[in-house]
Amino acid sequence: MRRPSLILATAAALGTAAIATAAVKPETAIAYRQAGYTMLGWNFGPMAQMVRGKTPWDAAEFARRAERVALIAPQLLEGFPEGSDTGATTEAKPDIWKNMDDFKLKMDDLVKQSKLLADAAKSGDEARMKEQFKQTAGTCKACHDKYRSED
Amino acid sequence: MRRPSLILATAAALGTAAIATAAVKPETAIAYRQAGYTMLGWNFGPMAQMVRGKTPWDAAEFARRAERVALIAPQLLEGFPEGSDTGATTEAKPDIWKNMDDFKLKMDDLVKQSKLLADAAKSGDEARMKEQFKQTAGTCKACHDKYRSED
Repeated sequence: MRRPSLILATAAALGTAAIATAAVKPETAIAYRQAGYTMLGWNFGPMAQMVRGKTPWDAAEFARRAERVALIAPQLLEGFPEGSDTGATTEAKPDIWKNMDDFKLKMDDLVKQSKLLADAAKSGDEARMKEQFKQTAGTCKACHDKYRSED
Repeated sequence: MRRPSLILATAAALGTAAIATAAVKPETAIAYRQAGYTMLGWNFGPMAQMVRGKTPWDAAEFARRAERVALIAPQLLEGFPEGSDTGATTEAKPDIWKNMDDFKLKMDDLVKQSKLLADAAKSGDEARMKEQFKQTAGTCKACHDKYRSED
């Protein structure tokens, strides 16, 4: 009777995300992660417009968008389960799964910098918000440069 | 010099969402709201499987999913700006924009019941979580029955 308990304990130690995504079809995971990036972009876009001076500065709107980015960013990683490098049209390069530890570090960077962006936005300090926006956008670029196909 | 100030004050009173979505193309809004529903479904699905007994009950996993649904639900409404009834393939019926007040009430129901679901999930009370899941799913159905085309 000990083996099943050990298996359950191991499953618990591996974390719930592994359990939840184990049976997911590649195309479902691909649709999910693309949805996550679409929601990120929807919220990132208006901030970028403000930072570039293309729309009027609106600290409250910026803060609302920053808060959402910080909530969505931690949800992206589970959209990249093993085997979801194919199955539907995807810009995710196969290198992601060959370098998953590095990919996770890059995702962690996005999560951390997004959190700092939401924190900065609460301060209402325009210069700090703009600087932190650039830091956060840099984590997007660092990952896209390496792991996103632009074909 | 008073008119610009009045216009700005009115814009502020209308809320930041109106400002942010004013210049959005219909197809962009449609992609955004569809992404929101995809993310909702990704998290709702594993909860439904547990409630139906198709996967083992996992209170922590349920709570994690419930928390996410509660975060995503309030982000959906801004995906339905005026004029986004066409512009890309969409299951959103034109009735939404003819009955926006009613549609908003239905969205509010989802937001409120999702919040209650996340709260219930924190309690760890399985029966309460399952009951609140059904209440929340009911708000999805109520809106889909009236405003979602199943063609």
